Amino acid sequence: MRRLVSAEEARRVLLSLVDVIGEEEKVPLDEALGRVLSRNVYAESDVPPHDRATMDGYAVRARDTWHASETHPVSLSLVGAVPIGQIPSVSVGPGQAARIDTGAVLPPGADAVVPLEYCEERDGKVLVYRRVSPGENVQWAGSDIARGELIAQRGTVVTPRVIAALAAAGVGSVWVVRRPRIAVLSIGNELVEVGATLRPGQVYDVNAHTIRALAVSLGAEVKLLGIASDDPEDVASRISDGLKWGDLVVTTGSSSVGQQDILERAIGSIGGEILVHGVRTKPGKPVLIARVRGKPVIGLPGHPTSAYVTFKLYVEPAIRRMLGLRPLRRIPRTACLTRPVITAEGRATFQTLTVKRGLALPLNVISGAVSTVLRADAFIFVDESTRLIPPGQTIHLEPLDDIAGEVDILIVGEFSPTLQQVFVEFAERENLTLRWLKAGRDAALLSVRRGEADVAVVPGVVDNAHVILERKLILVEHARGEVVAAVDINIASSRVRTHQSAAFRLLTGLAGAAVLPDELAELYGLRGREVGREAISVVVSEHFEMRDKLIDFLVTRLRAVSGVSRTCA
Amino acid sequence: MRRLVSAEEARRVLLSLVDVIGEEEKVPLDEALGRVLSRNVYAESDVPPHDRATMDGYAVRARDTWHASETHPVSLSLVGAVPIGQIPSVSVGPGQAARIDTGAVLPPGADAVVPLEYCEERDGKVLVYRRVSPGENVQWAGSDIARGELIAQRGTVVTPRVIAALAAAGVGSVWVVRRPRIAVLSIGNELVEVGATLRPGQVYDVNAHTIRALAVSLGAEVKLLGIASDDPEDVASRISDGLKWGDLVVTTGSSSVGQQDILERAIGSIGGEILVHGVRTKPGKPVLIARVRGKPVIGLPGHPTSAYVTFKLYVEPAIRRMLGLRPLRRIPRTACLTRPVITAEGRATFQTLTVKRGLALPLNVISGAVSTVLRADAFIFVDESTRLIPPGQTIHLEPLDDIAGEVDILIVGEFSPTLQQVFVEFAERENLTLRWLKAGRDAALLSVRRGEADVAVVPGVVDNAHVILERKLILVEHARGEVVAAVDINIASSRVRTHQSAAFRLLTGLAGAAVLPDELAELYGLRGREVGREAISVVVSEHFEMRDKLIDFLVTRLRAVSGVSRTCA
Repeated sequence: MRRLVSAEEARRVLLSLVDVIGEEEKVPLDEALGRVLSRNVYAESDVPPHDRATMDGYAVRARDTWHASETHPVSLSLVGAVPIGQIPSVSVGPGQAARIDTGAVLPPGADAVVPLEYCEERDGKVLVYRRVSPGENVQWAGSDIARGELIAQRGTVVTPRVIAALAAAGVGSVWVVRRPRIAVLSIGNELVEVGATLRPGQVYDVNAHTIRALAVSLGAEVKLLGIASDDPEDVASRISDGLKWGDLVVTTGSSSVGQQDILERAIGSIGGEILVHGVRTKPGKPVLIARVRGKPVIGLPGHPTSAYVTFKLYVEPAIRRMLGLRPLRRIPRTACLTRPVITAEGRATFQTLTVKRGLALPLNVISGAVSTVLRADAFIFVDESTRLIPPGQTIHLEPLDDIAGEVDILIVGEFSPTLQQVFVEFAERENLTLRWLKAGRDAALLSVRRGEADVAVVPGVVDNAHVILERKLILVEHARGEVVAAVDINIASSRVRTHQSAAFRLLTGLAGAAVLPDELAELYGLRGREVGREAISVVVSEHFEMRDKLIDFLVTRLRAVSGVSRTCA
Repeated sequence: MRRLVSAEEARRVLLSLVDVIGEEEKVPLDEALGRVLSRNVYAESDVPPHDRATMDGYAVRARDTWHASETHPVSLSLVGAVPIGQIPSVSVGPGQAARIDTGAVLPPGADAVVPLEYCEERDGKVLVYRRVSPGENVQWAGSDIARGELIAQRGTVVTPRVIAALAAAGVGSVWVVRRPRIAVLSIGNELVEVGATLRPGQVYDVNAHTIRALAVSLGAEVKLLGIASDDPEDVASRISDGLKWGDLVVTTGSSSVGQQDILERAIGSIGGEILVHGVRTKPGKPVLIARVRGKPVIGLPGHPTSAYVTFKLYVEPAIRRMLGLRPLRRIPRTACLTRPVITAEGRATFQTLTVKRGLALPLNVISGAVSTVLRADAFIFVDESTRLIPPGQTIHLEPLDDIAGEVDILIVGEFSPTLQQVFVEFAERENLTLRWLKAGRDAALLSVRRGEADVAVVPGVVDNAHVILERKLILVEHARGEVVAAVDINIASSRVRTHQSAAFRLLTGLAGAAVLPDELAELYGLRGREVGREAISVVVSEHFEMRDKLIDFLVTRLRAVSGVSRTCA
């Protein structure tokens, strides 16, 4: 039995294999956006460079204006003007004033500027109708940024704000860290390129694209090494290729014991040393970390959500280290947990969550390998000694990405293409975002009652339903034999868990016939005869801001949609 | 007098001039990162496409395992194997089992998978040592993503998470909105290209670079129209150029009344209609919105911080509208205000803030035109009817950018290059971020006491100082005449507010001599004779996690630094 390490130890091991990239590049300021500074940048000049008028007006000695008022102006002698962009040739003595424009240099002697609108020029005199205090409407040299001041630390991501400060300090080009090079390999006989036709049992290579996007977002350069079969030689030769170019090789592969051995043998065959093989976390148990030819190789699980979360946990900190970035200390975001989080025994757990109205709803990581990462907003880390976080507890969220926000309409329950179409129309009309979480009947109804979700869609007739949709159940027969169905109907000889399973079995000949709701049969181009009906109830939460509007819309639109037999408000 | 409109009305006017871009482009998935979907994307197939084993093991009928235990295995007949990537040729009847790998299709009859490690194969039989429940270790067809399910709404930014979902659904390329085209013009005689040599009175054109970076970050394409002089003809011809290519022209120019007239005249001369000229906000009063040849032109103030904030307020929503993005509903971030925010009479105020330990410290927007945007983390909007927000109130923050986080070491007070060097060394050793806010003595000491800042650097000797640095005051004489100084010293004939002002006056001949601290004189290459000493106290907050370490470091390092006469702990 292998020794499993903690997530912290796995991260420590990976980070120990990774150094800040020593190479740097000089790039023009406009190309620096998103790059990381490799050197501290200090201001080479003062901002502003001189004492600067911040208004159009008259440069004066403030004490000369102390008796000025709207009714009793003070009269000062005009000694000249300070044109913008020039060293003043005049100085302002007691009882004197000089015309000055915004941005011009304050002349010697003056310590304030009276705005134009409070002055009147007449016969070589300036009448001042308002008092100013010393320093008023003057920005002093270096008060914004002083020569020698640190403008940006090495290891800073160049954002528009950093660009503003660099430009102000006259920095036209900056030294940035060379982009980290990340080589990405997908492992698995079952994987095919996205877009190709799937044969049964095959799945798309999701992770190559996700890992590429995650790494590119962090500022890395990515090379895809393709899809390796479950063959140690193929895996080893692709990793070797990746190591020639990359600073780090990331593989993703199925999490089964057998396939992890393939990666282990591949790494062994090219002289690599395995430092971690197995982490006490859920998801993320099969993570593997090795040093091959002095460079790090990390194997992530094949489950897309597990790959995403383990990338954030291990690879992201490694890339940040390469770039010389510091750990990000975010302004905390918290939410109230609405359901218990129960963790795996002896394993730290990363629980994904959807957040709505400050309420955090845990998502099931296992069942939705792909959709979880799309339907979650954040995750929490629960350490291995905690078995349960009770509902009602305030938790600290780790957002899944920087722009994660709350969704506008959160729907939970049974999927229905017809209802989806109506919700999409409503969302587009009202300019709202929409998310649908699959959930069982009781969980869906509870979520809506508590306000963590906006709409529940559940099978059967519910007392407090706002809309009831009735759909036909269709028997589709291809051959004699087993009749499969995911609904409770007595003509079915075999029950499956999803309508999609029934459709797959029918289409591949694993079953002779299937019972499907009409709206789903249509999606697969399947036809048959009606053998029953099924009701679906829609319940809209009292907490949803546009409740009445949505109910009206649903009732009106569903009446018009074909294939729906009856709706009631 | 012009009628000033509210910020909300200005935004409404600009948005009314802007449409969602109708043009779209089809791009490969890997090039879609950061783009915006122009069409709803629905799943064309189920994920998983079939009922899928999630473990290596044996496909069984769950009810056959009900009596299995570690000591009393159940014996099932092995009917074959289901290779991955194939339609099963076997079916599992009562008392039977089939070998199955992770990812393979569950054969008909089976409803669960017993993991390999709980089974033993012997003489055509499988001994099962654990019971499984129906559905265990099976992921049902379509349970993750069902055919026909909405994967991503039009108007969604393509993040790594969206890429994961699109890839899983087999979407190899997507339709995205054509990038909005933003033309950017800087207006002002005083402006020069960043990197050029500044003549007195000139300043760098900061805004072109900032606006470009902001617009590019949102997914726009940007063309810089250069720097126009304060001449309506020059401005008009450049705006005309910009309108030929762009969807929107953004200008930035000084906020003075005179220069706004230039923009107004320029727009009038090319047949434009001015819809807004002046907004009741601080900053942002001189904002101008016009329609020229059917396209929007917006004039922002010239102050870099004002330009940044007004871009976020008006231009960002306009670009989001062009892209078809919805308003972002962020997970709220709050903080406790530590000092009162006093607003301008009759004007809504955007107050910038630095956030530390959940405490929000308002920054002065006016004095630091450039550095404010760099030194703030967030801002709050205070509407025009509110005159004061008292300290202690919890406020909702608008982050200045997506990656804004809390800084690790927040220093407030007087700038000292010597101290800065030591703080930078400490920050690099401990891998911390550093920020220095200039502040007066009392404000700095109060901030440290309350824990909103970590370190105060103040002139003079403070009772509870942890380190006192003494610096020499140097008299630099270039000519007979006025002696300027920013320190309290009797040989000065004229007082200025900043050491940088004294240096500027000396170097441009506006003063004959200046008194400067040695460490600052050095930065300007100025030499002279010592005429006094100045003490600077460093106070480290009790709330700073690494307080003792920092104090030790300061004492040790400052003893070694040249030019510092004395330190005490």
